[in-house]
Amino acid sequence: MSNLISAELPVVDASTAPCCPPVTAASLSEADAERMAAMFKALSDPVRLRLFSRVASHAGGEACVCDIQDVGVSQPTVSHHLKKLREAGLLTSERRGTWVYYRVAPGPLAAMAGLLTATR
Amino acid sequence: MSNLISAELPVVDASTAPCCPPVTAASLSEADAERMAAMFKALSDPVRLRLFSRVASHAGGEACVCDIQDVGVSQPTVSHHLKKLREAGLLTSERRGTWVYYRVAPGPLAAMAGLLTATR
Repeated sequence: MSNLISAELPVVDASTAPCCPPVTAASLSEADAERMAAMFKALSDPVRLRLFSRVASHAGGEACVCDIQDVGVSQPTVSHHLKKLREAGLLTSERRGTWVYYRVAPGPLAAMAGLLTATR
Repeated sequence: MSNLISAELPVVDASTAPCCPPVTAASLSEADAERMAAMFKALSDPVRLRLFSRVASHAGGEACVCDIQDVGVSQPTVSHHLKKLREAGLLTSERRGTWVYYRVAPGPLAAMAGLLTATR
């Protein structure tokens, strides 16, 4: 499993997002590049990106593992990817009863979209 | 140098971008996730992301290596990162005289921004 999942994803403090003007408007500082690259790294794995899109597009904007786990990998791998997305600040999670429910963190999503929105 | 640069970035055909509804609107197909994850992977390195933002924000929307290379790494490393960004379809390049000029490919940039733009 370790070759599927990058173990060294940096942990991002979601509370510090959003950030940064669009790339077409100004060049990124070193610190902002570190933060934003960590977010993009979390989306750089196809399975992780699919899980992120499944949470984001799920009814009510939240999903439990039970809703989104049929992506062709084992459930521990799904859980591990969800943990990475949470550590990168892109998902928030809340335990209710047996299940953990995931939501997209709006700040980091807006920070990534804002950075990549062309101003010309 | 090889530990700084991921050698296995997939080559993306920029002509096939843009792609995909926003993540909040629909879940990604496996094929689209492969394509988009490769683009995010190209932006997952802080130095590569800074180079991308320097090209994107440069006067006239284009830059040569000479304009953007002071990011604290060697010039061969800069060139290698620019090659990865080009292979991922995020930059286009054109040789004019001694220098190679880089521009952001508008389609892939729009595809990434569109995918990450929240619809709710």
